[in-house]
Amino acid sequence: MFGLRNILVKSVPTTGLIAAMSSAAGHKVGVVLAGCGVYDGSEVHEAAAVLAALTKNGAEPVVFAPDKLQAHVVDHTAGSEMSQERNVLIESARIARSAPTPLTELKAADLSAVVFPGGFGAAKNLSDFGFKGADMTVDPEVSRILKEFHAAGKPQALCCIAPILAANVLGKSGVTITLGNIGAESDWPYQGSIEAAKSFGANVELKNVDEVCVDVKNKVVTSPAYMYNGKFHEIQGGVTKMVDELIKLL
Amino acid sequence: MFGLRNILVKSVPTTGLIAAMSSAAGHKVGVVLAGCGVYDGSEVHEAAAVLAALTKNGAEPVVFAPDKLQAHVVDHTAGSEMSQERNVLIESARIARSAPTPLTELKAADLSAVVFPGGFGAAKNLSDFGFKGADMTVDPEVSRILKEFHAAGKPQALCCIAPILAANVLGKSGVTITLGNIGAESDWPYQGSIEAAKSFGANVELKNVDEVCVDVKNKVVTSPAYMYNGKFHEIQGGVTKMVDELIKLL
Repeated sequence: MFGLRNILVKSVPTTGLIAAMSSAAGHKVGVVLAGCGVYDGSEVHEAAAVLAALTKNGAEPVVFAPDKLQAHVVDHTAGSEMSQERNVLIESARIARSAPTPLTELKAADLSAVVFPGGFGAAKNLSDFGFKGADMTVDPEVSRILKEFHAAGKPQALCCIAPILAANVLGKSGVTITLGNIGAESDWPYQGSIEAAKSFGANVELKNVDEVCVDVKNKVVTSPAYMYNGKFHEIQGGVTKMVDELIKLL
Repeated sequence: MFGLRNILVKSVPTTGLIAAMSSAAGHKVGVVLAGCGVYDGSEVHEAAAVLAALTKNGAEPVVFAPDKLQAHVVDHTAGSEMSQERNVLIESARIARSAPTPLTELKAADLSAVVFPGGFGAAKNLSDFGFKGADMTVDPEVSRILKEFHAAGKPQALCCIAPILAANVLGKSGVTITLGNIGAESDWPYQGSIEAAKSFGANVELKNVDEVCVDVKNKVVTSPAYMYNGKFHEIQGGVTKMVDELIKLL
């Protein structure tokens, strides 16, 4: 009675009480995952904090992911590549707890907002920034989504390295983002990404892990998360703040 | 500059300020992971909530995992088995963000407390409850650890299905645990586990997702987490409360 049969039970929310009291009640918010694990997918702690902050605000998260192979699979104990293939959507389900919707079906018209958690998945599966730096290209579906929400005046939130996607796609529109701060490499190991974002035309604000960058005009909300080498609760706290700011823009 | 080289940078805590102000400062707490993903490993949201609650309390989490193959690999979009092998310790690193220590090296003498997040990994990789129900056996290392902490009078926390491990190993010692509540199967899909725990001699208290069962005598703290089919923030909240109660027993 506790075998494979049971795992097909889906996580259906069972009460609308909290939603009914909250500012984001009735709002569906897309969450774009890119695998499961910081070095080849979505950063687990950021994704978990995003989803919890959304339901706490009464919003209904809808998880999406690209239905394609990961750029590669990384052994997270060593940082080395594994000779294995994994599908981004299937691995993202480990965080979503059910099947994500293919990214091709994510339409701004169906949602109130969209969130991109970070992790190298954003820089490897949603773009190739992790391999090519400032010569990056963004996945065409991701590019379409960012432009669709921007054109519709609907809010988007991105954290950690994911804001590089908005910088690349919306830089010419004068978007303002953060990719964290400049300081000791032990604190801010990926600060080189700031120059790349500027090269795309984006305005870049320096923020600490507990701060959120809100571009009210473009409705783009960003926060450093694991761009800072912080403790688990510092990342959870920063990402929660980011989602709270996103909700205010609904 | 944003390629594979960077992924070797480790997450070293950079400030002791919060720790110095908190009740759990200086306490190392073991966190036993069993893979990455609810259906064949550790439940991602529970593990993330445990780690964040520990660092928020000023404790230093030390992640452990068994260095062995997973019982199987589950496609989390469908609940079906995949024809692939994965190592429990290597997959656990996706949550830990660095290499966990092999479970054989976890000694009660080195730690102030230990936490077992849930997910089917606890019922498939740390025991075989997910396959055999009340005829279960617990992994010998897990059994040793539970007994070692109990004998040393050091606190342990377990959530979701993981309390079945304490029920099995410490049932004869009169341990009191919770495995959630009894009610509609859509709310409490795994309530059959309660009878199994009782059959091992454990006392079982019925608790809701926002409640914690504290066995002060045996220093065992448990909470339902995803035994309840709840929303992301409900699980995050319940698990955080469980860790807060654990910290009080230090």
